[in-house]
Amino acid sequence: MATGALVCEALQTVLNDDRLFPPDPATRQMARELYAHTRSLPIVSPHGHCDPAALADDLAYPDLASELVTKDHYLLRLLYSHGVQLESLGVEPLDGSAAETDGRRVWRRFADHYHLFRGTPSKLWLDHTLCEVLQVQTPLRGDTADDVYDQVAERLTGESYRPQALYQRFGIEFLATTDGALDSLDAHDRLRKSGWPGRMVPTFRPDDVVDPERPGFHQRITALGELTGEDTSTWTGYLSALRARRATFVNAGATASDHGHPTAATADLSRHDAERLFHAVTRTGTSPADAELFRAQMLFEMASMSVDDGLVMQLHTGAWRDHNLALAARFGPDIGSDIPRSVDYVAALKPLLDRFGNETSLTLIVYTLDEATYSRELAPLAGHYPALRLGPPWWFHDSPEGIRRFYQLVSETAGFANTVGFNDDARSLLTIPARHDVARRLNAGHLAGLVVEHRLADHEALDIAEDLAYRLAQQAFRAAP
Amino acid sequence: MATGALVCEALQTVLNDDRLFPPDPATRQMARELYAHTRSLPIVSPHGHCDPAALADDLAYPDLASELVTKDHYLLRLLYSHGVQLESLGVEPLDGSAAETDGRRVWRRFADHYHLFRGTPSKLWLDHTLCEVLQVQTPLRGDTADDVYDQVAERLTGESYRPQALYQRFGIEFLATTDGALDSLDAHDRLRKSGWPGRMVPTFRPDDVVDPERPGFHQRITALGELTGEDTSTWTGYLSALRARRATFVNAGATASDHGHPTAATADLSRHDAERLFHAVTRTGTSPADAELFRAQMLFEMASMSVDDGLVMQLHTGAWRDHNLALAARFGPDIGSDIPRSVDYVAALKPLLDRFGNETSLTLIVYTLDEATYSRELAPLAGHYPALRLGPPWWFHDSPEGIRRFYQLVSETAGFANTVGFNDDARSLLTIPARHDVARRLNAGHLAGLVVEHRLADHEALDIAEDLAYRLAQQAFRAAP
Amino acid sequence: MATGALVCEALQTVLNDDRLFPPDPATRQMARELYAHTRSLPIVSPHGHCDPAALADDLAYPDLASELVTKDHYLLRLLYSHGVQLESLGVEPLDGSAAETDGRRVWRRFADHYHLFRGTPSKLWLDHTLCEVLQVQTPLRGDTADDVYDQVAERLTGESYRPQALYQRFGIEFLATTDGALDSLDAHDRLRKSGWPGRMVPTFRPDDVVDPERPGFHQRITALGELTGEDTSTWTGYLSALRARRATFVNAGATASDHGHPTAATADLSRHDAERLFHAVTRTGTSPADAELFRAQMLFEMASMSVDDGLVMQLHTGAWRDHNLALAARFGPDIGSDIPRSVDYVAALKPLLDRFGNETSLTLIVYTLDEATYSRELAPLAGHYPALRLGPPWWFHDSPEGIRRFYQLVSETAGFANTVGFNDDARSLLTIPARHDVARRLNAGHLAGLVVEHRLADHEALDIAEDLAYRLAQQAFRAAP
Repeated sequence: MATGALVCEALQTVLNDDRLFPPDPATRQMARELYAHTRSLPIVSPHGHCDPAALADDLAYPDLASELVTKDHYLLRLLYSHGVQLESLGVEPLDGSAAETDGRRVWRRFADHYHLFRGTPSKLWLDHTLCEVLQVQTPLRGDTADDVYDQVAERLTGESYRPQALYQRFGIEFLATTDGALDSLDAHDRLRKSGWPGRMVPTFRPDDVVDPERPGFHQRITALGELTGEDTSTWTGYLSALRARRATFVNAGATASDHGHPTAATADLSRHDAERLFHAVTRTGTSPADAELFRAQMLFEMASMSVDDGLVMQLHTGAWRDHNLALAARFGPDIGSDIPRSVDYVAALKPLLDRFGNETSLTLIVYTLDEATYSRELAPLAGHYPALRLGPPWWFHDSPEGIRRFYQLVSETAGFANTVGFNDDARSLLTIPARHDVARRLNAGHLAGLVVEHRLADHEALDIAEDLAYRLAQQAFRAAP
Repeated sequence: MATGALVCEALQTVLNDDRLFPPDPATRQMARELYAHTRSLPIVSPHGHCDPAALADDLAYPDLASELVTKDHYLLRLLYSHGVQLESLGVEPLDGSAAETDGRRVWRRFADHYHLFRGTPSKLWLDHTLCEVLQVQTPLRGDTADDVYDQVAERLTGESYRPQALYQRFGIEFLATTDGALDSLDAHDRLRKSGWPGRMVPTFRPDDVVDPERPGFHQRITALGELTGEDTSTWTGYLSALRARRATFVNAGATASDHGHPTAATADLSRHDAERLFHAVTRTGTSPADAELFRAQMLFEMASMSVDDGLVMQLHTGAWRDHNLALAARFGPDIGSDIPRSVDYVAALKPLLDRFGNETSLTLIVYTLDEATYSRELAPLAGHYPALRLGPPWWFHDSPEGIRRFYQLVSETAGFANTVGFNDDARSLLTIPARHDVARRLNAGHLAGLVVEHRLADHEALDIAEDLAYRLAQQAFRAAP
Repeated sequence: MATGALVCEALQTVLNDDRLFPPDPATRQMARELYAHTRSLPIVSPHGHCDPAALADDLAYPDLASELVTKDHYLLRLLYSHGVQLESLGVEPLDGSAAETDGRRVWRRFADHYHLFRGTPSKLWLDHTLCEVLQVQTPLRGDTADDVYDQVAERLTGESYRPQALYQRFGIEFLATTDGALDSLDAHDRLRKSGWPGRMVPTFRPDDVVDPERPGFHQRITALGELTGEDTSTWTGYLSALRARRATFVNAGATASDHGHPTAATADLSRHDAERLFHAVTRTGTSPADAELFRAQMLFEMASMSVDDGLVMQLHTGAWRDHNLALAARFGPDIGSDIPRSVDYVAALKPLLDRFGNETSLTLIVYTLDEATYSRELAPLAGHYPALRLGPPWWFHDSPEGIRRFYQLVSETAGFANTVGFNDDARSLLTIPARHDVARRLNAGHLAGLVVEHRLADHEALDIAEDLAYRLAQQAFRAAP
């Protein structure tokens, strides 16, 4: 049947055209129609971790394994849980010990364990990327690893697989990267000056100059002063320096900041207390309580600056970073040992919301790793405060079941319009279409269920499907062309 | 097909006869049968916030917008989150500043934003109320606001749309209002003496004379003494005064009390400590810790009095009331900025349960806004303690998805018979049928799923459907005629 | 239709061959196929509470009620919640007061209340046990109680209903009991020496010699010394004694230990501090904080010993034991008043994981009663640490909806291979097949959904279905023949 036609026969069970649609025939038919309506809408990608230099340089991808395996902490974590050593996947120890450098061998090792990913979103994304983006018709298994590797290697030599060509082919309209406060934004500058017709913008991520517990904090405060010509040994100078960096980001096209904090704590200290705290944390040996309070105060300051400069504020919170002591010591951060914890938003955000919650000029987008807060805290908060919006399912919850739970738990209380569409959070441009496709299919399925249960009219569902796929992200992130 | 016939053609997608039934055809057919069986059962409404004077006076409703929009905090909150000012919806600031007084203009404003409610229970209830109760065939949109308003205005002039006539038409058998401990119960008295054949009873809600943190607490303690002739400057006199008020409520037909506390804390202090605490909190400047302990002790005292006078005890807990500082200062409470928080029941209720948990003469009904406690705490507690029953999904969770989650999370551990049927919690009599209808449809859908999965026989499902729609509420709230 | 044929006509709605399969016809058909594939696989039962003496002695079961009602705290709790006194169900008060001793009368009382169990897993299990295991064709109700009782009584006199015959008939391949650290393991010894071809092994459960808050702790420490010839008045001697007992369990076939702690706290104290703590808790009058820290340290010690002796470590955590004060005083533990609480794993397990989390020779299986931790904490932890696996839905959550939630919340992040298959946790051998059957049906239904949504190929689903029913338990518990 036409609607069920296979995209890639060899991968038929994964890339069936009906994948991720609900089983009930009437619901599935409605999901097909809603999906067809949004499938080809442009991609707005307001939050992710693609390398800006890759797009600016527009070089061919050197190797499949380093692009899709070695830097994907979703894959590293699960492989590691089954005893696969990170060195064997190409992750380099900090001490310079040997790691696998042969991409083909990394790829084989990954393929040998690919069955462990059955039922995970990682497999959905990778199958889509291999089949739809890289046009590989061979299902990935241990015994096909070389074949797949060779096919992809050949593809990646072609002009049409360079980053800028892929950007066009994918229909991307807006692509935000994530950049440290001290970043030169050089790649962004080069790309903008090149006359490239796409739109890649930086995102201001100041964690490593506002979190006193990050290694190197003090040196970076000094560097921040040097970069901006402000005296960052004073509270006033420090804030001015941050304002200056934000302005630089705004000039480079940024529409948003992003804040990754262990908790959602915010604080509204007096100027005097804030100043004293600043001096406490910029000395060495600050206490965890001071560090937490300083981060809390800095979220407040960032909100205040956002009211002035218009940067949309993203708050990603709730992960215990680098939980695995030994692994973090050996490899550093972002190798798959971050673990979510229970988070409180209601008391934590109150100081910030007391001051800025009623500001319609502020957009604060909150993301969570604690799904218990969806219906209990976040939907009620987003369904009330004008400044607050609720970010899409994030990280571990950016998955078919996670997306379903998000809508089931959130939309009855907050409505769809207090959410902000999809974030792909991608580490590689190659995986962006896969992630949006999964989300659009899940959106279609959820809305189809509402239509079939007569909770939405079909024209309403079509309208919301477009919102979720495109308009809400564009509006919330101020990304309109 | 007959079973799928439309009630109101113009609103077909909302008021389809199959609305809210599961999509699978066999399950839907079973749901239709279960629903048909309970659709016309009398309504027992043991918890809500209808105005007793409206029924006693039996006057025509003056205005659609003030009745259905201005006093509905579900609507206010979502509108406010999208920047609609509460004054423009007719909510009057405490300082006497101007608010919209023209109902038609409030209604238009609401209609202009009605699309924001797509997928929310508020829209389900309102569509039902407009179409089924008020017989309006026009779907509500910005461009139909006036037309709908005019049609309703005409209806509301008719005798058959007065409160007492609606009470009969709706098939209500028992209607409890919620009344402060100092309330004169005048409307209840008048109605009872009028010879009206219906049954409206008060509910004893003593929060503002047991919570030292409520503004005006001290004056109300004095008023309590004056009203009862007890010396409420002493612990003994205070308790006697409360006993006297409870007796007055019982005489006015009350079968239940209701307690809205921030947490579920209970305490069993010695008489000496309780007395000392009473004196601490009835002086000005009491500490938050003392206030919390006093509320905890008062839940214990209320349970003790319930064992004596038979009032069923409802505990609604877990909301941070008036979270939005500026809005609460401007408009006062109940304008949509209450936010749920994480709640512990297991330690909190233990002092009360240690003393009264095994009392079969006590019924304590617990409600939650923290769905994480359904399967973890409340179903196990209600599935063990004879005195404990579990209230239906409340507030943010009184929704299609919320009701489904409730049964999925609760009934396997607590059984259906430890739940207490449905509460409409309605602010307007006009919306009562809509709320019960949504619940009965969801109940039918859930039970139908159990039948089709052969987890219940159909005769068992019919029996439980009647329990959930009617008998459990009647039994738990001692509301039998 | 053939696939829907009834096993027992009289119980048709419960024991329909399609029971517990999803309603959608295509999904149901796939579920049938997956279930057919696993239905007859051998049973691996690595965690439960069957009486080892029953198998060793191989006597006929004396009475249906004492075997299936009086010792089943799932049944006791729900009956008690509706006012049925435990004495009337045969539970003997500690003070020697009278309890019902007539099994038939207990059974009648239970049957009179059997409708309260509609929709609970207890009823699914019992109906299966009565119909499939005990071959009773009569549905259980108050008016059939005697008839059922008589039929079962007759069956139970037969040779083929003795424990060893049932073990064979059920296709059990591995059966672990749960045994205190001081247990003589006499029944295990006798059975092993008897030449019986089955495999029953003990599990080392040292709670009552590592938890200072358990009554009798000090005497048992002394007894532990006597049993092992170690000086358990010293920290070193105490640890040696535990090592000796573990060795005895290993020699008796044990492959696992089991630890029931109130929280998941672990600690890595210096030898000096641990020693001092040991002396503190082995004196009378230890503080709750010391007791908690000692339990935490002992989990660490147990993990350390597991690395040496290979016992798989199970951690069951999160229940407030004996919450009902009066009932615990009257009847002692395990009568249905244990209540789950919120649990933190991320901080609590860190000391243990910092030392042993990367050990591939350790298997630590974590179970929870707090479903909020599935997607937030446990799936991310199990999806990263090589030593960690996630136990199946436990206790209140071992139910159709609980099993569905488990897979929905866990498998996308942890993958299926970081889970360990099913535990029946049975108190009676008679109920083991029922529990595995329910789980296998639910597994089939969940996997069928993934196939129909094209998230798994059918051959992948078949493979995983076998894993979940058999191989994962065998591997994780080192139970291979």
